Amino acid sequence: MSIITIERKVLEKNEAIAAANRKKFKERNIFTMNLVSSPGSGKTSLVERTIAKSKSKIKIAVIEGDVQTDLDAKRVEAFNVPVVQIITSGACHLEANLVRDAFEKFSDNDTELLIIENVGNLVCPATYDLGEDIKVVIASTTEGDDKPLKYPAMFRNSSALIINKIDLLPYVNCSIEQLKRNALAINPSLKIFQTSCTTDEGIDKWIEWLESIVKSR
Amino acid sequence: MSIITIERKVLEKNEAIAAANRKKFKERNIFTMNLVSSPGSGKTSLVERTIAKSKSKIKIAVIEGDVQTDLDAKRVEAFNVPVVQIITSGACHLEANLVRDAFEKFSDNDTELLIIENVGNLVCPATYDLGEDIKVVIASTTEGDDKPLKYPAMFRNSSALIINKIDLLPYVNCSIEQLKRNALAINPSLKIFQTSCTTDEGIDKWIEWLESIVKSR
Repeated sequence: MSIITIERKVLEKNEAIAAANRKKFKERNIFTMNLVSSPGSGKTSLVERTIAKSKSKIKIAVIEGDVQTDLDAKRVEAFNVPVVQIITSGACHLEANLVRDAFEKFSDNDTELLIIENVGNLVCPATYDLGEDIKVVIASTTEGDDKPLKYPAMFRNSSALIINKIDLLPYVNCSIEQLKRNALAINPSLKIFQTSCTTDEGIDKWIEWLESIVKSR
Repeated sequence: MSIITIERKVLEKNEAIAAANRKKFKERNIFTMNLVSSPGSGKTSLVERTIAKSKSKIKIAVIEGDVQTDLDAKRVEAFNVPVVQIITSGACHLEANLVRDAFEKFSDNDTELLIIENVGNLVCPATYDLGEDIKVVIASTTEGDDKPLKYPAMFRNSSALIINKIDLLPYVNCSIEQLKRNALAINPSLKIFQTSCTTDEGIDKWIEWLESIVKSR
């Protein structure tokens, strides 16, 4: 029993900090997106594409979460947007207190969209609220079409699903229709996009949707 | 401090059960492999290929670990080998007690190779010893070449790395040489294989090595 009690306390404490984060983001009129996926599904590539297309219209800041290295922050920094790297040193997900501390490092106060790129992990980040407005999950075609069934919590808790690497569809064993059916069986209200960060296909539709929800915040 | 103490107790308990598993496997002369990777890197496909090629020479049994569904056990069952599915119901990794309980479900005692397919997760399973002889990590070319640096514990704790989906190399942004350099920087003694479960390329070399270590157990 003691372990379950401790886990509940950890989650309760995280939720209290996440609520404080959410209040702060709302007060400052910042829309926040928690971007989650398996390792290598294309989170950082999507962040790069999003910044390249939207930064002239929307003020974007990025928090990068990784177990080790600041490789992702360096990729994002090249686009001249404010970025803070969180290194979790082994932990498998971001928690609300890490996001709170990282956010304090930003010096400018005019951010409209804060993108939080979580640790690559299709399981644990589903349980930890960071105070974001929406979770967006990426599933790449190379991972197959069964992932929503095998890792349901992440798809259930997300507002949008980005099916990435659609340029690789001719070469992989993945049915887009089956993947969509599986995802919608878990979460019927998922907004679904199909993209390739390599060919740029589908990115404009994603950007259009993202910009519209950021503007209507 | 109490949370850290509890975590240590959980790990200590897991290690005690893992040691008992290891003793039992050794007494029964069973070689055990803990197969780990991100979701969708090809763990189940590699298990299928391995069974298809080796089951006439080696008695294989499989324990499948998933957060939800018995889809993987069904795929393996089609090859007519004993298989037990563990559903973790949300937990992000297998633990030694789950493997102990699953192993008790096998009725025949002549297994030579026990393959344990872990939950798709490049972080958490690195911390939980199951009592296996070796960990084998799969990294697919579609995930890029930086994963050993970003998720070092899994590569440090593995005996072999299988670089899978090499048939997709012409279409993805991944340098095999860089991936190998990154992996060997983390773990210089890693044995590295390059495979495609789609075209069968490189599978024979993997099988040859696996059969040799199983036979020399």
